[in-house]
Amino acid sequence: MLRKMRLFTPGPTPLLPAAQRAMAAADLHHRTDEFRRVFRSVLDDLKYFYGTANDVILFTSSGTGAMEASISNLFSPGDPVLVAACGKFGERWVELGRAYGLSVECVSAPYGQPVPPAVVAEKLASGRYQGVFLQATESSTGVRLDARAMAEAARAASGDTLVIVDAITGLGTTHLDIDGWGLDVVIGGSQKALMIPPGLAFAGISERAWQRMETARLPRYYFDFRKERKASKNGEAAYTPSTALVMGLAEALRYIREVGRENLIDNARLLAQATRAGVGALGLKLFAPDSPCDALTAVCAPDGLESTAIIKEVRSRFGMSMANGQGSMKGKIFRIAHLGYFDFAEGLAILGALELALHALGVKLPLGAGVRAAQEVYLQKQT
Amino acid sequence: MLRKMRLFTPGPTPLLPAAQRAMAAADLHHRTDEFRRVFRSVLDDLKYFYGTANDVILFTSSGTGAMEASISNLFSPGDPVLVAACGKFGERWVELGRAYGLSVECVSAPYGQPVPPAVVAEKLASGRYQGVFLQATESSTGVRLDARAMAEAARAASGDTLVIVDAITGLGTTHLDIDGWGLDVVIGGSQKALMIPPGLAFAGISERAWQRMETARLPRYYFDFRKERKASKNGEAAYTPSTALVMGLAEALRYIREVGRENLIDNARLLAQATRAGVGALGLKLFAPDSPCDALTAVCAPDGLESTAIIKEVRSRFGMSMANGQGSMKGKIFRIAHLGYFDFAEGLAILGALELALHALGVKLPLGAGVRAAQEVYLQKQT
Repeated sequence: MLRKMRLFTPGPTPLLPAAQRAMAAADLHHRTDEFRRVFRSVLDDLKYFYGTANDVILFTSSGTGAMEASISNLFSPGDPVLVAACGKFGERWVELGRAYGLSVECVSAPYGQPVPPAVVAEKLASGRYQGVFLQATESSTGVRLDARAMAEAARAASGDTLVIVDAITGLGTTHLDIDGWGLDVVIGGSQKALMIPPGLAFAGISERAWQRMETARLPRYYFDFRKERKASKNGEAAYTPSTALVMGLAEALRYIREVGRENLIDNARLLAQATRAGVGALGLKLFAPDSPCDALTAVCAPDGLESTAIIKEVRSRFGMSMANGQGSMKGKIFRIAHLGYFDFAEGLAILGALELALHALGVKLPLGAGVRAAQEVYLQKQT
Repeated sequence: MLRKMRLFTPGPTPLLPAAQRAMAAADLHHRTDEFRRVFRSVLDDLKYFYGTANDVILFTSSGTGAMEASISNLFSPGDPVLVAACGKFGERWVELGRAYGLSVECVSAPYGQPVPPAVVAEKLASGRYQGVFLQATESSTGVRLDARAMAEAARAASGDTLVIVDAITGLGTTHLDIDGWGLDVVIGGSQKALMIPPGLAFAGISERAWQRMETARLPRYYFDFRKERKASKNGEAAYTPSTALVMGLAEALRYIREVGRENLIDNARLLAQATRAGVGALGLKLFAPDSPCDALTAVCAPDGLESTAIIKEVRSRFGMSMANGQGSMKGKIFRIAHLGYFDFAEGLAILGALELALHALGVKLPLGAGVRAAQEVYLQKQT
């Protein structure tokens, strides 16, 4: 049997073919009008993708680079900040803050559960934090956090608390009213809903955050928001950018404009709903049943079976790569992605493949039941 | 007339076709055995490309990111360091050191001249510097610095002075005996002699430098040498790497192994010699006649003509992009690159195109004389 290799991981995600072609053809210089035109269009289209009037800054790095920038550009040694953490990426905010000598306090929730916004709001009410950090969607566990409630609590308590959101898997999968809710820094990454490989990071930055930079005293050089904003006015990056990825991104953003930002989010949501229904019909448990995100679905391995074995079986039989759990969740859960360039037929295919893989591993289940539950979600949406 | 667009800039440089194809095909996950195999081979082949037994670290960033890392990972606030600066990239070392609160002293030379190694050696003899920073080749001016003499002076004076070399355009164009001379950190970038687009940076790191990191106290997170070395033992990057560029780099390094590192350097040297002979035969002056590097040739515009006009004429007539001067050198010089995927026929073509462009701009010159001088260099090498 033939077997096509396909990504079902929450980053990297399947590549848009037009973007792949543009990447391969990118033998151009970054200080030319040709590239400046593309770079300007990319920054402009990123604002559309974000749904914001704020400037969006682009770095050549992984998303972590832009997370780091939102600390080194905005704070000073010893500043008190709050982190809402319920997974590996929340923990990264804590590590980053401590690496730069901030006074980091953390409200955490067990893996699989969201950080309760009321607890964060109570802390924020003191008005003593210079910033609050969270994930829009915590992709290590498949949880959606309530960015809106936390932002409103920050705004109500103090004009000075910056709201900094890792939306690397949230953008393009989750409705975020960045300007309405007052999200001050929103981080994105190229290999997620943007349909191109990793290597570019983004930050949408509010006026309040630009003002804060005037007085921030942490050291920085490569990841410098103000230097990038200044260069971008001339259609350039401050340092040599990843031209091939920028060319690919221009194509991906053109496609996203055609599809429509809201439709892209709806696509992920429908796939997520169908997948949750499908795995439920197979008797599998969701890892984050209370506040699941739509970027991906985290599923618990059935009793007596390692998720690693399921992932391996699906991959070796059908070429489909799901993600394992990270850290202590490894072997316990598997994750199916919906963010970016996925269509509904692939959503059906991964469920059908999962059913056959579980069957091969000796799990008793009604073949076809997961796919059927997903089909019913599809039909409901059509009426 | 048809016109093919071609880069003659000292980064980005022409892309290796096999690398372009590999980039476009890079729809794979970075935490898989398939990618780990490629990543390991890339790190191993980079050691070959560098000609070092030291570990080479890879970052997803521009070369500046690795320059920054060699400050934030190796020094502590207030450390005294020396910079040898004779161009825009030397000045970047000064800026970087100051951004991180080092006590930076600078020995400089006018644009177009190398920093005299004796002056640097005299300073280093005090043994008081924790590090000395330089460029192997200063690509803003086309100058080669004497990295060997400066490294020897550092070694003679003190076991503690780290020698940190920006070899972004030096690698693959200049003989550097990294281990023999004791170069502690050697920085590289993907869009130079490595024949792929920008977006990856490298650092070859000596045992002395790894030891220094134990006590260095500057803040860092994304650019962390030790975290990357640890991850690389498992064939991984600490943070999601630019997979497409890594796949392209694997192909480029395979090609460089086939060609041979020394032959790649000789190729650049021959092109540089031929170009210097060619522009000389046209009556043009070299900007760095005393210590020219082989990565590129910087040429002064003839009296009464802006280099900008020459660059524009060559590009609009023949599709060939040379580089302008940077900063105060803009309009005064143009730069022709030799680093990476250039062959001798292209060296002849750019000279022939330059002759016709200068002729069109009213410069009196013996058509064909530049090409002929280059051909004579070729013939001398063949005998």
